[in-house]
Amino acid sequence: MLTLTLKHRTQLKSPNTEEEREEEVILERPYRIYLNEEPVGSSMVLPTGLEEFGVGFLFAQGYFDNPTVFKEVRLCHEKGSIFVYADVEKIEGKDLIVTSGCGGTGKISREFLEKEFSPLAEWRMKLSEVREFILKVLKKSDLGLRTHCVHACGYWENGRLSLFYEDVGRHNAVDKVVGAILMGKASPKGAIYTTGRLTSDMVLKCARVGIPIVMSRTATSSLGLEIAKKAGITLICYARPERINIFNAPERIINDLV
Amino acid sequence: MLTLTLKHRTQLKSPNTEEEREEEVILERPYRIYLNEEPVGSSMVLPTGLEEFGVGFLFAQGYFDNPTVFKEVRLCHEKGSIFVYADVEKIEGKDLIVTSGCGGTGKISREFLEKEFSPLAEWRMKLSEVREFILKVLKKSDLGLRTHCVHACGYWENGRLSLFYEDVGRHNAVDKVVGAILMGKASPKGAIYTTGRLTSDMVLKCARVGIPIVMSRTATSSLGLEIAKKAGITLICYARPERINIFNAPERIINDLV
Repeated sequence: MLTLTLKHRTQLKSPNTEEEREEEVILERPYRIYLNEEPVGSSMVLPTGLEEFGVGFLFAQGYFDNPTVFKEVRLCHEKGSIFVYADVEKIEGKDLIVTSGCGGTGKISREFLEKEFSPLAEWRMKLSEVREFILKVLKKSDLGLRTHCVHACGYWENGRLSLFYEDVGRHNAVDKVVGAILMGKASPKGAIYTTGRLTSDMVLKCARVGIPIVMSRTATSSLGLEIAKKAGITLICYARPERINIFNAPERIINDLV
Repeated sequence: MLTLTLKHRTQLKSPNTEEEREEEVILERPYRIYLNEEPVGSSMVLPTGLEEFGVGFLFAQGYFDNPTVFKEVRLCHEKGSIFVYADVEKIEGKDLIVTSGCGGTGKISREFLEKEFSPLAEWRMKLSEVREFILKVLKKSDLGLRTHCVHACGYWENGRLSLFYEDVGRHNAVDKVVGAILMGKASPKGAIYTTGRLTSDMVLKCARVGIPIVMSRTATSSLGLEIAKKAGITLICYARPERINIFNAPERIINDLV
C-alpha cells in the first residue's frame, strides 16, 4: 500500500508565538503516459486510480474520441509509467491549448471547441439525490481535509455514488472518473461532482463523454458555461447539500423535497 | 477597456425556494504564444498582464532560462496572440511534464527537476511586512471575490507591494509575476504570495527566477517542498495576516512584532 502523504515539521509563527507543528503533505509524483508503447506526455499525479487516469488523460487530450477503441492499460510503478493500449492508428501531435486548469490534463484540442456534441443520456435527478451525492463525496474527501492539497471527484448513477477519486489536480480527478466511464466501470447516464472549478476543459471532457449533469462546489468560467450551453449540459455551481445554483438546463433537476 | 466578467442569470434551488439570481462569470480566453514568430503553445487566460504572461509562460516551459535573452513582446488581441522575442537560437520540443497545477503553465521540463539552482538574493523579511503584504493582496483581489474563479499573485519588495496579477489559473498568475521580473519590472530580491497551492511547478519557477521567499494562502505538495528545500527557499503555507506556517528556511522571517 502506497503512502499518499508525508509528515513534515513546520514552524508556526505569529507575533506572540513560535511553535513547532507537524503537517501532512500530499504526495505528488510524475507519471509518463504511453499510448501503444509511444510516450505522449507526463503528468504530476496523486498515484491512485492510475489506470483510469491514463485512459482519461489520453481522451481529454484528444488522442482518442471513441470509447470503443480502448483496449487495455498496464502500470509500472517503479518507472512511473502508464501504458494505455487503444485501437488508434496514428498518434499525432495535437494542436493543444494549455488551459487554466488545476490539473494534469489542462490541455484541450482546439478542434473540440468547434465540434458538435452527441446527444446526452436522458435522465433527471431528484434534489434529494443531489443532496445525498454531495454529502457522500464530501464525507469521503478525508485526504483533502488533511492536506488541503487534493481535489475530489465523485460520480452518481442509479441512486448511488459509484465512483470516487482524488488527485492533486482538479483535472486529474475528473480524468479518473472520465477514464473509469470509458473503461466501462460506469455509464455516462449520471452526474459528476468536482470540488474544482468548471473551466472550459473540465466541462469539455464531461460533454465529450456524455455526462448530462455536471456539478462543482465552486465556480465556472465564461468558456465553461459556453460549452455547457452548446452541449445542453445541466451545469451546477456552488453546489451545497442545502442548495444549488443552476447555470444551465435546470429542467433536469426535480425538486422532490418541497 | 476589456470587460473581464459577464453577467449570467442562474436558478438558485433549495428544498423550499426557487429563485433567479445574477452571477458574475469570469472571462476565459485562449491566447497563442509565439517565440520569435514560431507558435509554441496556447493557453486559456484572463486577458490582463498578457505581456508578462507570455514571457513567464515561455520561461516556465523552459524555452529560455537566462533572463537577459528576453528582448521584446507584442500583443494582438484580435487574433489572441502573444509574440515574445528572445535571443534564443533553437526552439526545441521540450520533455515536458504536465503538472497538477491549476494554471496555464502546468508543465515543467524534466531537466529542471535535476538542475542545481543559483544562489538566492540575500534578504530577510519582517513579520510586520508579511502581514501587510498579505492584507494588501487580499484587499486587491476584488475579481476573485466576485467570481470565485480567479487566483491572485502579489510581489513584495523594498517594503511595498510592487506587482499584483490575477488569472483563472494559479500558474498563470504566478507566470505574470515571474514574467514581470524577467522584464525588469521588479527584482528577484523579494517575496511572492499566491492564493493557489504550491505544487512542484509553482515552486520551481520561483526558484529558477531566484525569489527567496515563496508564500501561499494554502498548501504545498511533496515535490513542491522538495524543490524549496533544494533551492533553499523560505516556503510559507497557510499564510494569514495573523500567523504563518513556515515549511522551510524560517530564518529569513524576523519577528519584529513581539
